[in-house]
Amino acid sequence: MISKSEIKSITQLQQKKYRDTRQLFIAEGPKVISELLLAGMEVEAHYDTAPTHILKENYYQVTAQELKKISCLKTANKSLAIFRKPTSAALVDSGLIVALDAVRDPGNLGTIIRLCDWFGVNQLICSEDTADCFNPKVIQATMGSIARVAVHYVPLKDTLQSLSLPIFGAFMDGKNVYDGTLPSQGILVMGNEAHGVSAEISEVIQERISIPQFGSQTTESLNVATATAILLSEFRRAIER
Amino acid sequence: MISKSEIKSITQLQQKKYRDTRQLFIAEGPKVISELLLAGMEVEAHYDTAPTHILKENYYQVTAQELKKISCLKTANKSLAIFRKPTSAALVDSGLIVALDAVRDPGNLGTIIRLCDWFGVNQLICSEDTADCFNPKVIQATMGSIARVAVHYVPLKDTLQSLSLPIFGAFMDGKNVYDGTLPSQGILVMGNEAHGVSAEISEVIQERISIPQFGSQTTESLNVATATAILLSEFRRAIER
Repeated sequence: MISKSEIKSITQLQQKKYRDTRQLFIAEGPKVISELLLAGMEVEAHYDTAPTHILKENYYQVTAQELKKISCLKTANKSLAIFRKPTSAALVDSGLIVALDAVRDPGNLGTIIRLCDWFGVNQLICSEDTADCFNPKVIQATMGSIARVAVHYVPLKDTLQSLSLPIFGAFMDGKNVYDGTLPSQGILVMGNEAHGVSAEISEVIQERISIPQFGSQTTESLNVATATAILLSEFRRAIER
Repeated sequence: MISKSEIKSITQLQQKKYRDTRQLFIAEGPKVISELLLAGMEVEAHYDTAPTHILKENYYQVTAQELKKISCLKTANKSLAIFRKPTSAALVDSGLIVALDAVRDPGNLGTIIRLCDWFGVNQLICSEDTADCFNPKVIQATMGSIARVAVHYVPLKDTLQSLSLPIFGAFMDGKNVYDGTLPSQGILVMGNEAHGVSAEISEVIQERISIPQFGSQTTESLNVATATAILLSEFRRAIER
């Protein structure tokens, strides 16, 4: 039986300010929760409609009705857990890094984190106006990848300037990414869904790259998550050869 | 003023059976509607909260309240239009073609249609259990690309067997797509979100390809839309060189 105040305390975590103050976040569904547990994330409380053997402490069996009250999903999915936010290690000036300049959609951010994980990118730098990676929608979209990708919210321009890695940015009018070879280390900057990379951040980009368009010229630009997929693949195929 | 029967007649188009019988579909928002008009799609009726100059016939000014009643969106977006489904040309056995085997999510299908448009793929073949491309959610996600990509719903295996183009399929255990060069013409088969390419369709695949994974091996597979983005880019970069 979950008390009213407990329900309130849990659902408050749907808001960033409470996640920030309490350093906690919500994950839902057996698959995402078990991925986070496997990755060694620290669990604060686990609510499940079935008895479970994974955890003993902080485990509470709940009814489907109770789960519905604490869930952020349209259709609650068997279990919900409250995790402690990981303490990020310091940013390391090496490897391949993705940087996001005001990416606002939680679904896009979640997909990008999952892509980083697939392509072995373990550092993601976000401008302070990028969506919060501990937003429940992002956590669901990452499918557990959040446990393996360190996300840093920083003043983006200053941070980019403080790093020695070469800085690439995705632009509609950049150099054709299929020409030449990308380095195995560097920073790939992706811009906002509607406006692309901002003027402020553009100033620190060293190489503007672009995915050539083969279809009609009236087409919308590629979605930021699909463009990130293609560009990360381009960086990695260079290593493969 | 829209009558109750008119509201019913419009909202019925949210269901596939009515779209099929009446050969009509819904598009919403000024951007998507103007893309479809520009592409020469035939409009049946246009409801707008503002006076418009684009169309004279079949144009109805509505209140925000009325628009809300006919909209499929959470937040109705200024205008809604009913278009006539285009009559597809016959499938042509040349060029680069994408084939979908039971892709169920409308958002994924919409993203894939937009990718086809970007990469100049103007024929998309779908198994009969793939999501309907005239579903309002797909139309919104395509951002008008549906006007430039012909989508064919067919018995997939028979159709693939009837074409002479080489057939590639995306598999977790396929040949590394970064090794070797892809041809400029062929069929790329992408499978269902949860199960990948079905056993039935696998029988007609001539080359199994795969996007190498660089991160942790516990990661989920790539989402079907992001995997399609990367593989289409691989087919096109071959032409570029």
